[in-house]
Amino acid sequence: MSRPKVGLVGGGSWATAIAKMLCKNHEQINWWVRDENLKGALLKNRHNPNYLSAVEFNPQQLNLTTDINDLVANSDWIIVAVPSIHLESCLKDLTVSLENKFVVSAIKGIVPVHFKIVGNYLNDEFNVDFENFGVISGPCHAEEVALERLSYLTIAAQNPEKAKMVADGLACSFIKTNISEDIFGTEYAAVLKNIYAIAAGIAHGLGYGDNFQAVLMSNATREMNRITQHISPIERDVKESAYLGDLLVTGYSNFSRNRMFGNMMGKGYTVKAAILEMNMVAEGYYATKSVYQLKKVLEVKAPILSAVYKILYDNKPPHKVMKRLANKLD
Amino acid sequence: MSRPKVGLVGGGSWATAIAKMLCKNHEQINWWVRDENLKGALLKNRHNPNYLSAVEFNPQQLNLTTDINDLVANSDWIIVAVPSIHLESCLKDLTVSLENKFVVSAIKGIVPVHFKIVGNYLNDEFNVDFENFGVISGPCHAEEVALERLSYLTIAAQNPEKAKMVADGLACSFIKTNISEDIFGTEYAAVLKNIYAIAAGIAHGLGYGDNFQAVLMSNATREMNRITQHISPIERDVKESAYLGDLLVTGYSNFSRNRMFGNMMGKGYTVKAAILEMNMVAEGYYATKSVYQLKKVLEVKAPILSAVYKILYDNKPPHKVMKRLANKLD
Repeated sequence: MSRPKVGLVGGGSWATAIAKMLCKNHEQINWWVRDENLKGALLKNRHNPNYLSAVEFNPQQLNLTTDINDLVANSDWIIVAVPSIHLESCLKDLTVSLENKFVVSAIKGIVPVHFKIVGNYLNDEFNVDFENFGVISGPCHAEEVALERLSYLTIAAQNPEKAKMVADGLACSFIKTNISEDIFGTEYAAVLKNIYAIAAGIAHGLGYGDNFQAVLMSNATREMNRITQHISPIERDVKESAYLGDLLVTGYSNFSRNRMFGNMMGKGYTVKAAILEMNMVAEGYYATKSVYQLKKVLEVKAPILSAVYKILYDNKPPHKVMKRLANKLD
Repeated sequence: MSRPKVGLVGGGSWATAIAKMLCKNHEQINWWVRDENLKGALLKNRHNPNYLSAVEFNPQQLNLTTDINDLVANSDWIIVAVPSIHLESCLKDLTVSLENKFVVSAIKGIVPVHFKIVGNYLNDEFNVDFENFGVISGPCHAEEVALERLSYLTIAAQNPEKAKMVADGLACSFIKTNISEDIFGTEYAAVLKNIYAIAAGIAHGLGYGDNFQAVLMSNATREMNRITQHISPIERDVKESAYLGDLLVTGYSNFSRNRMFGNMMGKGYTVKAAILEMNMVAEGYYATKSVYQLKKVLEVKAPILSAVYKILYDNKPPHKVMKRLANKLD
């Protein structure tokens, strides 16, 4: 039997970083990008002009396409690495079935409008069975992959062999991989950490310091534990890298767009003004609404999530909300 | 009965920050400093000229002394806040008994030569019963206390009433307090976090990035859990602020002397050269030897501690040790 063929969906920084890893382990990869310009640039200039431009590709390894049906038809397993806000538009023309493919989400966010994590969205809309679904999680900034700085990925799938196949497709001298069976916890943790990064940004914008940030992250770790345990009550150590590590790399990063968005809230921007100024919507914005609705159903104690929700969706003054939150932290 | 009288031992930044907190809650505090110059400066200039000089004191609140016996005789409970390397010399002239005093350690380190945590040292050398011993733990940079930035302290004591007495003596508009009964876990966590900050510094000095740092801190949290559980197997959530928060505020701080010391090791300095250059010994240096000896007795899996020990005490090359450590992390 020939080796399963891999397909990659996305042309942003994380997709480009994943393409770099895949090229270390595959003679050829199928790669969908949105437009012909990017496809042409990758083939002609050997790098992505928009993201991680220092990463050089061998064009002979890249079977590039702008046709999502072409990508899916030619691939046995598919890594989806577009921002969550673009997932729906990216798949809108898909007519080839995903049912017999192994689909891996490298997306860290909630699908807008549907307000679902990617696994549930693909299951509901494209009949991707949870047994045929995997998650790639950090802690992993794409920029450091470009620089070949040692990074660790966790690949979660209900079937350990499938998880291992993905892990082996990504591991290389600067990427170490773990596997896990916790698809729901891993995906929710990746979503939650963006909300907590917004909270960290808000606190920073309001002038709270490093002492408070450490307390906030410690409380966020426990809140993440409570929420993931309620959603999917399995044996899980939230201190592992896929949960705590992923939270830390985002919550402590000055480059995180979610943290930056929160920082603007803390500085007094309205949500609308921050989105205009950033020229994008931070993924944690949708995540907050989605997980907050879930929280109400589950009745989990989640004061940080509630605080961020009140600031982003109820238009409550950040300094008052954070002061009240501070009284609930320990 | 009159209110218990508080005494403070130490003239550094952390002692000065604690004096500031105590003055919010006490008409007068007894305060021991090492030399007459500092005593005179505090009284005359209303601030400590060496540390946190922006903090202003009311001299009428300060009953300053340079006589440790005087301090102990006049105080019912005593906060010791000198660097661990100075504790022994600071207590060498003490003839007044500590036996009926409640002694609180705000020291985050191992007592050199004795290679003991402060609680064990005071118990062995000064007959301070563990029931009369407490620990103050962060996450709390003194500099942020000076700026009145909201910070959280945990006070651990076997007797919750004693813990509450200390907590009430420190809490104010910018200091929130928790109490805990875990004197051993809290003290060891405060010691261990300095070792992990050295590890973070070594990694940074060698060029490892933020992705690795997050994995290192996630592994350090689990290692801290294993070690504290072996030393004192009680129900403990290491994700709480006194453990995880304290680790984060140090491990992510560019101002931590332990992290700086590690960074120099990573850059190729010898231990001797780093100590000379820093003009001091980072507390984690002694902690590493002390806890490593304990580890051998306890047989805990502690790869980060072992790696730091090999670099600091076995003169092994940092890049090789860290590469081997990286293979053990997940």
